[in-house]
Amino acid sequence: MHREHLAELVASHLQDVPDFPKPGVVFKDFTPLLADPSALKAVVDDVVTRYAGRVDFIAGIEARGFMIGTACAVALGVGFIPIRKKGKLPAATFTASYDLEYGSATIEVHQDACTAGARVLVMDDVIATGGTAAAACELVERGGAQVVAVDVIVEIGFLRGRDRLRDYDVESLLTI
Amino acid sequence: MHREHLAELVASHLQDVPDFPKPGVVFKDFTPLLADPSALKAVVDDVVTRYAGRVDFIAGIEARGFMIGTACAVALGVGFIPIRKKGKLPAATFTASYDLEYGSATIEVHQDACTAGARVLVMDDVIATGGTAAAACELVERGGAQVVAVDVIVEIGFLRGRDRLRDYDVESLLTI
Repeated sequence: MHREHLAELVASHLQDVPDFPKPGVVFKDFTPLLADPSALKAVVDDVVTRYAGRVDFIAGIEARGFMIGTACAVALGVGFIPIRKKGKLPAATFTASYDLEYGSATIEVHQDACTAGARVLVMDDVIATGGTAAAACELVERGGAQVVAVDVIVEIGFLRGRDRLRDYDVESLLTI
Repeated sequence: MHREHLAELVASHLQDVPDFPKPGVVFKDFTPLLADPSALKAVVDDVVTRYAGRVDFIAGIEARGFMIGTACAVALGVGFIPIRKKGKLPAATFTASYDLEYGSATIEVHQDACTAGARVLVMDDVIATGGTAAAACELVERGGAQVVAVDVIVEIGFLRGRDRLRDYDVESLLTI
């Protein structure tokens, strides 16, 4: 499928939810995309086309990055690495923190998750400020692996996440 | 792959982590299974073989159920429904609570996630006491859909989760 058609397909399967997670924010909910098998497959097929032979692992960011990331990993025939919120991974981890509007958040990856030199695609549903994705890239590199790209479905353009990720290839299907 | 071979494969890809999430508990970590593309594909292929033509949606329970569930949904060509912890889903939800050792927990599903009459496979990584899975089945049925089965990778036998799920088909690759 041409990428502009895919972008239209994705746009038609996003649901705007006003005032979530807080007043004034319009949340881009992608559960309608997950629920439609042909739309979901089109998104996964597009990832396969773009990264086949170029990656060894997909690292998915908790929690929506798990949904799209594992499906793409199986379709690509590569392994999946979960990047989780602090305290959720049982074995020894590397941790990275990033700023939120108020306070900060910490994410982790298992220390043995990334083999040295492995080529890793970082996936999530959305890039907003890019803080989470930048921390995820840091974790991948701490393990001695390399980030091939950061790939998301939706990019919130005005939050300028790309600026924070300027050291990486950033791919999105749709910019809002 | 024969199911006993698959069970051995899964067992060899589980990592025992002592004292997680609390002292005295041995956590069955399946991240080594996720990281191995051929083992992960074997698990997904087995789900496809058993449920092809029998389900319309896979409902995955947050968060490890998202990892295995979405991959199986794409491989089966069906939709995916996230069942999430309270407060994470943006639109109108049904909620169900279940007891924990101390206190209780609540999970949710979008009210419009399950079309009436849809056949839904509930997936997670592990069944322990069965409380979460039973609440997930309740949510699927609240939406007017039917639970085809509860399918997990690992079942902790001595916790007798099947007793709590006696109204449902329960399938696990490995009982510990």
